[in-house]
Amino acid sequence: MSEFQPRAAVLPVAEEGMQRAVLDGGGVLADAASADVVVWTDPHGPETLQAALRESPARWVQLPLAGIERFVALGVIDPARVWTSAKGIYGYACAEHALALMLAAARRVHTHVLHRTWEAAPLGSPHRLLKGSTALVVGTGGIGAALISLLTRLDVRVLAANRSGAPVDGAEVTVTTDRLPELVPEADFIVLAAALTPKTRHLFDRTMLERMRRSAWLVNVARGGLIDTAALVEVLRERLIGGAALDVTDPEPLPAAHPLWSIEDAIITPHVSNTLDMSLPELRSLVRRNIRHFARGEALEGLVDPALGY
Amino acid sequence: MSEFQPRAAVLPVAEEGMQRAVLDGGGVLADAASADVVVWTDPHGPETLQAALRESPARWVQLPLAGIERFVALGVIDPARVWTSAKGIYGYACAEHALALMLAAARRVHTHVLHRTWEAAPLGSPHRLLKGSTALVVGTGGIGAALISLLTRLDVRVLAANRSGAPVDGAEVTVTTDRLPELVPEADFIVLAAALTPKTRHLFDRTMLERMRRSAWLVNVARGGLIDTAALVEVLRERLIGGAALDVTDPEPLPAAHPLWSIEDAIITPHVSNTLDMSLPELRSLVRRNIRHFARGEALEGLVDPALGY
Repeated sequence: MSEFQPRAAVLPVAEEGMQRAVLDGGGVLADAASADVVVWTDPHGPETLQAALRESPARWVQLPLAGIERFVALGVIDPARVWTSAKGIYGYACAEHALALMLAAARRVHTHVLHRTWEAAPLGSPHRLLKGSTALVVGTGGIGAALISLLTRLDVRVLAANRSGAPVDGAEVTVTTDRLPELVPEADFIVLAAALTPKTRHLFDRTMLERMRRSAWLVNVARGGLIDTAALVEVLRERLIGGAALDVTDPEPLPAAHPLWSIEDAIITPHVSNTLDMSLPELRSLVRRNIRHFARGEALEGLVDPALGY
Repeated sequence: MSEFQPRAAVLPVAEEGMQRAVLDGGGVLADAASADVVVWTDPHGPETLQAALRESPARWVQLPLAGIERFVALGVIDPARVWTSAKGIYGYACAEHALALMLAAARRVHTHVLHRTWEAAPLGSPHRLLKGSTALVVGTGGIGAALISLLTRLDVRVLAANRSGAPVDGAEVTVTTDRLPELVPEADFIVLAAALTPKTRHLFDRTMLERMRRSAWLVNVARGGLIDTAALVEVLRERLIGGAALDVTDPEPLPAAHPLWSIEDAIITPHVSNTLDMSLPELRSLVRRNIRHFARGEALEGLVDPALGY
């Protein structure tokens, strides 16, 4: 059966890599007026998209971002077309950042960067191999699943926790979040990759933090509110845990006078784990797959429900 | 064909993990007096080994380290037995350290650790994804081969250079070291994992450094002398390259007053990439494989030539 070749308009910027993704997916390039699909490359300015669509018969619109609240609020997401977002694709960059933080902690890169001397700095814990260590990944959505895949490739033993307790590829064991206290004492690294909900708020409070190994590191690349920050400062000061590596904090931004900044074994990056730039390759790859799905009449990835708005 | 079960004495410390490796390899545990093989667990104190061997009929001795000069000097390595060392196994820990440094550079962990503020620090280069970047690995022995394997698992494009130019698993292209100047401009990361010889001394001099991309990082986990340090300081100060991440330096230790310490985009760790602790899992795995080889009459890994002394 010969395949239909979707006519795709890459707008508002005719980004070359995205055009190549269209061609690689089996599509052809077109302008808005004759397009079957509009591949939108600008995460900002929903108004511009609305204007562009007025002159387009496109049946499907691919958006470049995951959180599309602003497009929804403006009423851009009209139910007469099919809409897809980039939900899920930012997980990889975020997972790679978590890996960078874990390795920095294991090899004490932060200690050496701060002390700037060859003399052995007083180490809270020795330099460690990541391979063979045990990581507990809390939350197994886009970020968590990508991280578990990365960690297994590096021969890290993975334990996981999620809402349903449904087994996750690559994890030796998966438990429901309420059984976390059982797994926490086993982990060398605990990585938070969960959504912030009333149930997960302050999931890592003093009691949970006290269950961690004294040498273990807590890594957060999800939402600051998953941790009770005051309790974290306490256990770090009392050296009850190895350290904390945080790309997200509570409050955020973290104020200049916050005590976390003064703790050596707190590695803090200012919410930089996934920029659009970093995720561009993933976005292109999603577009290539979706163009192919569209050509074959298959289900698209990242389908938006216009009624629910995500 | 039923296999012979080697009788192994794990000495001088009956380390539990090593005993398990013997059993997993198909051996049985024995004392020195009835052992076919002595698995020696102490990298120091060759005298103790000499004493232990006096009462042992062991035909094979497994040593726990790579550089066995002190054992050779004392005449412990008697040619009536078969000797194996742990040459090669320390490569993994070293490769993992190189990966930690690459990721720290890509995600600018050092910048954030130094600045300790949420405000965007003036970045020499933006945060980057490691996946999809290009790494040039110089030297493809134990460290280089392990690193190439790690990088390909993380979807990094790998170029390689070695003495012979013989193709290396996982590298898209392998060239001889004298053709390095052709590949250097293509790399986002250049990792030095080569032996220091008269030919490789100052391999990265001003001319070679100037061929690097302005955003590229130079990582050294091998020997400090591979780089002309004065030239490196110059190109870093002139911002001709992205940065340098060094676990080895020239001179080493790096004196407190050395200009490298004052350069923000120089990440320096004090030769900590491979400690015995970190390599213990690899050592156990080598012992397991060698016990199995011995049981099957196969060639052992890490065979020492008593005449050559390594």
